[in-house]
Formats: sequence, structure tokens, C-alpha cells
Amino acid sequence: MQAPSVPCRWASLPSPSAREAASMYGTAVAVFLVILVAALQGSAPPESPFPYRIPLDPEGALELSWNVSYSQEAVHFQLLARRLRAGLLFGMSDRGELKNADLVVLWTDGDSAYFADAWSDQKGQVHLDAQQDYQLLQAQRTPEGLSLLFKRPFATCDPKDYLIEDGTVHLVYGILVEPFRSLEAINTSGLQTGLQRVQLLKPDIPTPPVPSDTRTMEIRAPDILIPDQETTYWCYITELPKDFSRHHIVMYESIITAGNEALVHHMEVFQCAAEFDSFPHFSGPCDSKMKPERLNYCRHVLAAWALGAKAFYYPEEAGVAFGGPGSSRFLRLEVHYHNPLQIKDRRDSSGIRLYYTATLRRFDAGIMELGLVYTPVMAVPPRESAFVLTGYCTDKCTQLALPPSGIHIFASQLHTHLAGTKVVTVLARDGREREIVNRDNHYSPHFQEIRMLKKVVSVHQGDVLITSCTYNTQDREHATVGGFGILEEMCVNYVHYYPRTELELCKSAVDAGFLQKYFHLVNRFNNEDVCTCPQASVPEQFASVPWNSFNRDVLEALYGFAPISMHCNRSSAVRFQGDWNMQPLPRIVSTLEEPTPQCPAIRGPSPAGPTVVSIVGGQR
Amino acid sequence: MQAPSVPCRWASLPSPSAREAASMYGTAVAVFLVILVAALQGSAPPESPFPYRIPLDPEGALELSWNVSYSQEAVHFQLLARRLRAGLLFGMSDRGELKNADLVVLWTDGDSAYFADAWSDQKGQVHLDAQQDYQLLQAQRTPEGLSLLFKRPFATCDPKDYLIEDGTVHLVYGILVEPFRSLEAINTSGLQTGLQRVQLLKPDIPTPPVPSDTRTMEIRAPDILIPDQETTYWCYITELPKDFSRHHIVMYESIITAGNEALVHHMEVFQCAAEFDSFPHFSGPCDSKMKPERLNYCRHVLAAWALGAKAFYYPEEAGVAFGGPGSSRFLRLEVHYHNPLQIKDRRDSSGIRLYYTATLRRFDAGIMELGLVYTPVMAVPPRESAFVLTGYCTDKCTQLALPPSGIHIFASQLHTHLAGTKVVTVLARDGREREIVNRDNHYSPHFQEIRMLKKVVSVHQGDVLITSCTYNTQDREHATVGGFGILEEMCVNYVHYYPRTELELCKSAVDAGFLQKYFHLVNRFNNEDVCTCPQASVPEQFASVPWNSFNRDVLEALYGFAPISMHCNRSSAVRFQGDWNMQPLPRIVSTLEEPTPQCPAIRGPSPAGPTVVSIVGGQR
Repeated sequence: MQAPSVPCRWASLPSPSAREAASMYGTAVAVFLVILVAALQGSAPPESPFPYRIPLDPEGALELSWNVSYSQEAVHFQLLARRLRAGLLFGMSDRGELKNADLVVLWTDGDSAYFADAWSDQKGQVHLDAQQDYQLLQAQRTPEGLSLLFKRPFATCDPKDYLIEDGTVHLVYGILVEPFRSLEAINTSGLQTGLQRVQLLKPDIPTPPVPSDTRTMEIRAPDILIPDQETTYWCYITELPKDFSRHHIVMYESIITAGNEALVHHMEVFQCAAEFDSFPHFSGPCDSKMKPERLNYCRHVLAAWALGAKAFYYPEEAGVAFGGPGSSRFLRLEVHYHNPLQIKDRRDSSGIRLYYTATLRRFDAGIMELGLVYTPVMAVPPRESAFVLTGYCTDKCTQLALPPSGIHIFASQLHTHLAGTKVVTVLARDGREREIVNRDNHYSPHFQEIRMLKKVVSVHQGDVLITSCTYNTQDREHATVGGFGILEEMCVNYVHYYPRTELELCKSAVDAGFLQKYFHLVNRFNNEDVCTCPQASVPEQFASVPWNSFNRDVLEALYGFAPISMHCNRSSAVRFQGDWNMQPLPRIVSTLEEPTPQCPAIRGPSPAGPTVVSIVGGQR
Repeated sequence: MQAPSVPCRWASLPSPSAREAASMYGTAVAVFLVILVAALQGSAPPESPFPYRIPLDPEGALELSWNVSYSQEAVHFQLLARRLRAGLLFGMSDRGELKNADLVVLWTDGDSAYFADAWSDQKGQVHLDAQQDYQLLQAQRTPEGLSLLFKRPFATCDPKDYLIEDGTVHLVYGILVEPFRSLEAINTSGLQTGLQRVQLLKPDIPTPPVPSDTRTMEIRAPDILIPDQETTYWCYITELPKDFSRHHIVMYESIITAGNEALVHHMEVFQCAAEFDSFPHFSGPCDSKMKPERLNYCRHVLAAWALGAKAFYYPEEAGVAFGGPGSSRFLRLEVHYHNPLQIKDRRDSSGIRLYYTATLRRFDAGIMELGLVYTPVMAVPPRESAFVLTGYCTDKCTQLALPPSGIHIFASQLHTHLAGTKVVTVLARDGREREIVNRDNHYSPHFQEIRMLKKVVSVHQGDVLITSCTYNTQDREHATVGGFGILEEMCVNYVHYYPRTELELCKSAVDAGFLQKYFHLVNRFNNEDVCTCPQASVPEQFASVPWNSFNRDVLEALYGFAPISMHCNRSSAVRFQGDWNMQPLPRIVSTLEEPTPQCPAIRGPSPAGPTVVSIVGGQR
């Protein structure tokens, strides 16, 4: 895409004293704007220049559309603001906070309207950026509201700017309801604000063709009443037709009931376990006491969608098998409704539409679980801002379990519980890290989607897959151990790959004997606080560790040194044959550095301060 | 200083193909240049716009002068190149290497001469900087050679650029003896190159007036023959006149024998111990077998000078007492000659000129030693790139030993042995780091000078002084323990302060009992490799540790956790009264962050590529 030419009126901001002199306080003044700048020129398809769209706030007053140019390394944003009063803030921050955020601000001082690249400090105070990297391309009044078009490079090299990376981006917004005499007069803490998580840098991969005999099946909530509470996970059991033969799912997409776009947060379709002939029907909250216990056996992911995700296409040569013998007819739909305004009486029939074919593709697609075994031996000390746990899929396991031609990972879903903040899986070969399988530096457990990889990663026999999760336990008093509970932790990457193999689980945990040596050592330095007697459970032992810098640092050192116990398991939870205990940690002699962002060498015309936006309308 | 206006001819670089077409290879072409650009305008005093000057190479062919503008946050450089053939490289790097260096390059392709901001990668390959931050202001032919005038901001925010900070800067240079068809054709590994260490950001403090009755005394080498070897430390004993009464040294400066400017690296004047009535006279290498052993008792620093340092002035209210009863009449001069070209037959009488007064100032100045006790319990594992050891001067010691009005530190000399790469001392009060006393992120043991602090640091009773040293032991096979030997390590900050107190040493080391717990722990994890029997010395125990990530990490954790033994000592090496063993580590709840560099918000006219410099002369 060509950089659009910008014949706009860049005017410098009048000095505060001049503006203060003008009468401008009083009731809120509506901001109306006209087309100021040249229309966007570009190579994006004319029918849909902004393929991605998401509501920012629960009422849908702010709607963001965007596209991504990998050649320009820039994102074009189109922000539609309905019923705007006096301006808005929009931007990004590490974890969705309005403090320490990278912002664009549209505001009025009562006389003029301004647009500027800004940032907020740790107190929420807004400041002008020294470097103006958000570039306003168009401000247009439309029947729906005010539409702002602006672009920003992925990386700006302004230390106050957010680096737009692969993975989750926490978008933030704020609504201005009155004029401000200057940008510096704005503090985010007094505003109506919110956040929305999204994968901004969607992969730029061609859509594989769908076979001509493709049929669809809709797995949808049965016109339910959305509970008037902030968080609901709705569970609904449905089933495939009797005698439904083996098919390949080749694609799926979301179906959102009109008007509920801001309420439906994510949805997953699970297949139930084949070992049970039938499952009871159910439609209700997943945490309901009425939910039949057998539904816990419906955990095999068939499809997953989260806010902002588009249709998911399997690679042309692979599909997910379902139906036929050895496969359960029962499916569970789980819908996460996010209803912070506690809207009542809203009915919903959202769900997922599966596209499937009877003409089986060359390969079955499979899912493999990488990371840590669900065991309390892997624990995070309390009051940590970024403690890292790492799970390994060793060369020995891939050597034994992968086919000689290897496997090809094309998608990945990262998973932790509430303390997870980052997840990354790296592929290593011959002791050297080679490739990132998937990385999310702003991971949120509240936003787990299956993501297509930008580049398919091939894993060969003898390769090592290293999955590291970073946890924040600053609000916790006791150690967080690994396990299934929501306050316990996991570190998992579900990788989607083909051809499907028998290897379903390739995970590790520290050797339990070495952990006991650790508890002994803690006792030696801390006067016998930890019970190392055989009857104490590992969670009990961790709970009795007096956490100090030494005990914390030594635990970290232990995890970076002690041998591991490997789970190199078939689908049936049976280990592959071999000795999997007391395995050495994979030796990595060279690591991949996070790439230093390339700053745009030559910038376009860039104003030194805010841009004046002329007001032509009256009050609304 | 105003930013100079630059009416220069910024021309873009002809494309390589155009230049390649021109005939330009053959014998080296001398580069002659004329004044191209406006003369430097500024507020620097007209008599000496460049107060600092240093030879870069041992032959003195390249001479650098510079000044510092703290208001502009920029350094102006004037580089004089004598007998230049085809160009030069000049710049800075982390530790003086020509790889990964930030460079300016003046080169010719045979037709034209060019000036550009560049960088070298880890293979020494030179590349053009995306951002041109070195700004050429003047290129002038003078009788002495080519004089280049250019400026650079302290911080550029170009990730390829060196950040000019307080402390040591490793300047690097390279000589081009033939034309290069392009900047990218240059590799630093084939060139004659070198480095020079200097404190670039000299403090900008007014010179205190010197009393009218000031007299001078020269402590100089007695016309010695500089040995024709790379490194010589010369020791010379001299004495004060008999009945020399108590005086205050108020200033001192170097005296360098003309022609030896590039050979005299640093000099120190030490006072001998008062407990001996006399010391034998001596003039010879300090490592000579003939050197009398008693000279080891001449260690009290009176004055120190290193290459690039200007005159050292004591604050107006303080001076260093010498002469009179209780003070030795004997002085030791130590001169470090750096003679890498092994020049023969060069005689030298360099030394230090002391300015002293009989009118004693209000306060005696004193020197206090902060950091680590010289003991093997503090050790650095082998193969570490940046291992940190920390020594404390605790609140308990400052509470007891400092006067109620506190002391004022005005200068500092950092000291480690060969593995030291960084040193910093921070002042903490009430658990919070408040102020940097002195920091050198590019410290070199080969460049130890007494540096005036930019800002006097006042230390009150109850304050904590934390001195951290970073070591590189990548070329070592065994642990490096603390001690006096050149292959053992130290971590010391000699702070110069007033009023003088009895506290001469405020240092710490880890508790020896906790270190034994560490050796026990190492045994438990490593099957009894370390002798923890009482007769084994600590260096022997460290030597038998099998170094792996765990033993290394746990040692680091131990140093960050275990109680310390304090040396809170008077001049006579006697501890102040109190319990100084098993002291808790000072608890620090908030640390000072290294400031993020401020990038110049609006740059001056900055070319996108090399600047063409027109050639007017012929061959030389």
C-alpha cells in the first residue's frame, strides 16, 4: 500500500494562554467534523478496506475497524464514534490499563477540535508525545456518527509508544464529555473508560478453497436468555445426526445474534468422549449445580472463536475428522457472555457454523498439548510480577513419536489460568533455538483463541519444543501450584497440526525427588519450617515455605537445573515406551533474541504537536 | 549554546552504480578538504572552545578536542587528523571494540569524499545509520592537518547508537589508507585501529578560587628512561622538606613531558604510613625485585590523574591535610606508562604539581572506602558475562560514625581488578534509593581516575551506601575470589568528602557461616564434590565447586539474602564499637531506575544519508 499523500492543514496548537483567553467553558460542546484530509488511497480490496471489526464498549458506541499492511508495517484504523459529545481517547496498553497507555486523543477546547498522539503516565495524566506517530488521514461525519481514519506503524521507537506485536493487544478507550483547555488537562482516571482485547496483527495468509461438496452445520445456543450478570459461561449439549459418517471439518465461523455483538465474548465447540454411549441434554450456566457431571467428559476442542476472530480455515491438505465410528456424536457448545452493564431480557442464539465435507482431505488434523504437566511440583512463589515456568517436549519424545517426515503446526491456542501474562513456544534443534512457534507478550486468560500461525512450523524427529509461561502473583499471599483449579496454574500450548499422530501430550515437570531436596535446603536455611516428612503433600510443603528472596531464587534455579519427568503420551493417556523420569533438561546453547523493532527510517510529514480539526457543525 | 545554523550543501549520495562507473580505483588518494559549512557559533569561551583534548593513537596522529553542552545535551568534537591518507573512522563502543561500534566515517571513493553516521556489526562490517545523528559542522584544512568539527546529542534513540553517559567512554578510531567504493565496503577488522578511554561528560562545575598564598610543589619522575615495553608502572619515592608544617592541598594538575602525551597513562601520588620514620629512596618499575618492601606502606592517595583529566580542585571549604606532626614526610609517585609501540630511548619527567596553602581551610577533606571487604568469601563464578557483587555501608555504621550534620562527598574513584566492567554506588535512606553517588557503566580497571561529582552528595546518619560491581569472567575457568591479587577481585569506591571523620572503611562481605551452608547445599545437589571440612580454605572450596547453573544461581541468591559481616572501621583499622557480624542486609523497597534517555524531540536538518564533502586539493 502506498503511503497516502496528506495535503491536510497541519497547524500548530495555539498556546494555552491564547486558548485560555477564549471563552470556552460551560456546557459540553458537541464536536462535529468534516472531511479534512485526502481520502485513503491504498491497495486494500475496495469492497472491504477494513476486514476486521470489533465493538470497543459494551453499548457499541465505539466501533473499531482495521486492516494490517505487512509491507508498510503499519495498521490503518477506522474508529466510528456514535453519539460523541466532546471527544475520545483510544489506544493500547500493556494489559488494558488506562495508565501508562499509548493514546490518540480527539478533544475540543470549546473553540476548536484537536487530534494528537499522546500518552498517559502512571497517574493517568495525559501528555503530548514528542513524536507524533498516529497520523490522521480522514475525519468524516457519517449518518452513523463520526468516523476517524488514522494509521500507525507497528514500531515507532518513541519510548512512550506501545509496540504492536503478534498476539493479544489490549485496546483501551475513554469518552470525553466536556471540553478541556489543553491535552495536559486530561486525566484518564476521571473518565468513562474500558478495554477490549484483540489480535491486531491478523495473519496475512490466503484463504484455502472450500470443496464444492461442503455442507454446513450450526451449533447454536437455543434462544436462551442472557443472564444479567457480568460473566456467564453457558453450556449447551447437542448431537450429530445418527449414522453421521466420518467427515472433515474444513472451516468454521461464528454466528452472532444481531445486537449481541458486544456481549458474546468467546465460544467453543467440544466433542464428548467416545467411551460413553450417550450424554444427557443440557442448556444452562456451566457452573450450575444442575449440570450433569458427565459433561466434564466433553473436552476435545473442535472449534473455538473469540471476539474479533474471523472464519477459521484449515490448510488445504487437512481437516478435523468427526463423525463415524470411534467418535462421539455428542457436542458441547460453551458461550462466554460478558455483560458488565448487566443488561436484562436479552435473548441469544449465537454459535458456530461448521463447514464440513465427506470428501476426506489427505491428512487428519490433530491437536497436541505442549507445556507443563498439571502437577503441584511446578509452582510460582507469591508476590512475583513476572515469574517464568517452562515445560519441555524433548528430543527423545519427538524422536520416538513423530513420523520421519515430521509434522506441520499451523495453528495454536495458548492456555494458562488467571495468573498467566505471557506465553511462548520455541522450537530448538541441535541445541539452538530456531523458530518461534507462537508468542504472546500480552497474553490474557480472558482471551484464548485458536490463532493461525503466520508461518507453518515443521517439527522433525529430535526437535525440542520449549513452552514458557510468565505469571503475575503480586496479589497473592501463598505459592500458586500447578493443577486444574482456577487458582492453580497451567502452562499449555494446544498446537493444531497435521498429519495427526498418536502423540497427544508432550509435557514435562521438575523431578519430584529434586523438589524434595529443595524443601530440605529451604529448611537448612530457614530453621525447619517446611515439613519434609513423607505424609506432607507438595501443596502443603509449598504452603509452608517462608517466601524470601533466597527461597524464591533457589526455586527458580532448581527449575532451571533439575532433571525433569516427561509425559510423552498417546491419546489414551498411555506413555510411549521408554524411560521418562530423571531426564536431563534440554541443553540450549543459543537462544533467539526478540527482534529489535525497525523504526521507520524516513517518516512522512509529521506534525510536532496536535493537529487542529475545524468545527463546522452546531450543537447536536 | 545555540544550535548552529547549517547552510551546508547536503547532497544525497550518488547511487553505487553511478559511482562505480567512475574510474576511482588505484593508488590511495589523499583527501583534502576546505571549509564547507558555517563556522561553529556558540557560547563556549572564545579563548578555548574545546577545553578537553586527548591524543587517540600512540603516535598522536589523531587528536580529539571536545566540549560538553549540558543545556543542549550534546558534545561538540574537533578531530585533528595529521597525515591523513584516505579517511578515518571515529566513534564509541561498549568496551573499546571496533565491532558493534557507533561510528562516524570520513571516506573517499576516489572522486568525492563523504561523511556519514554509521555503525559496525559484530563482524566489523560498517553500515549506514538509518538516522544521521553526528552532524558535520566544519571541515577545515589547517597547517597541522585536517580538522573536522561535528556534534552529537548524548542520546539519539537510534538503537544502533551509543548512549553517551557519565563515566568512562571508550573512544575508538580506525585509519583508512585507500578509497572505498561505498561505506558498506568497509570492514573494521582490516584496518589500523585503536581505542582511548576518556570521561567524555566532564562535570560542568565552577572552578573554586585558589588562595593568594598558594604555593606549588612538583612530584615528578627524575628524568627516567621509559622502558620499551607496553606496560610499566614506575615507582619513585620523594620526601617533603624537613619541618614541613601542616598544609592543605587545594588543587593539583598533571605535568607531562612534552612529546610523551600519548605515553603517560595515569599517575598517582601516595603518602606513606606515618608509623615509619623513614622510607628508602627508590626509582624504578613498581614490580622490580629491587623495590624495597616497605614501599607497600605508601598507599594513602594524595592525588591521582589519568589521561584526559584536567586540574583537580578541592571544594572551597576543604583541603587535604599533609605535613606537620602525625603525617609522613615520604611520598610515592606512581606513573603508568603505556607504550604499545615499544618506543625506545624516550626520557620522561612527568608528574603532578600540588597547589597547597598554609592558610588551612575550614574542613579537612578525607577519603572513605566503600564496597566489599577484601575477602575470598565474595566470589564470582567462571564464564559469567555480568555477575554482580554488592557491598554495603549500613545505616548502623553511618549512624554511629558520621557527625550529626553529615558528610559531603564531592569526588569518587572507583576500583576493581581486571574483571570489573561496571561500578555504581547508590545512597539509600529509609529503605529507598535516593541518589547515585557515582556510576560508571563502562568502567575499566585500566582507567581509574578521581572524578569530581557533578553534584555533591550529602550522607547523613542512618543512610545506607550500596556499592555494586559487575564482573566479566567469560575467559576464566575457575571462580574468582575476593582478595589483593591481580587475579582476585575488589569492589571499592574511594569517596572524597569533608569534613573528615574517623570512619575510613565502611564495607561488607557475606557471613562466613552462611557461605559454609552454601557449600553444604552444593554437596547435597552434586554428590559431595566440595570439601566442607574445617581445614579447607574458602578459595579451595570455591575451586572445587562444579559450576553449573544451579550452583551459580544459588550463590547469587545467597549473596542477595544472607546476613553480612560489616567492617565499620577507623583509620587505624579498628572497628567502631558494636556488633558487626550477622547483620541483616539493608532492606531496599524502592530502587532508582536508570533514566530513559530523552531523545531530541525535534531534530535539526538531518540528512538521510552520507554528506558529500568536495575535494579541492591534489595529492600530498
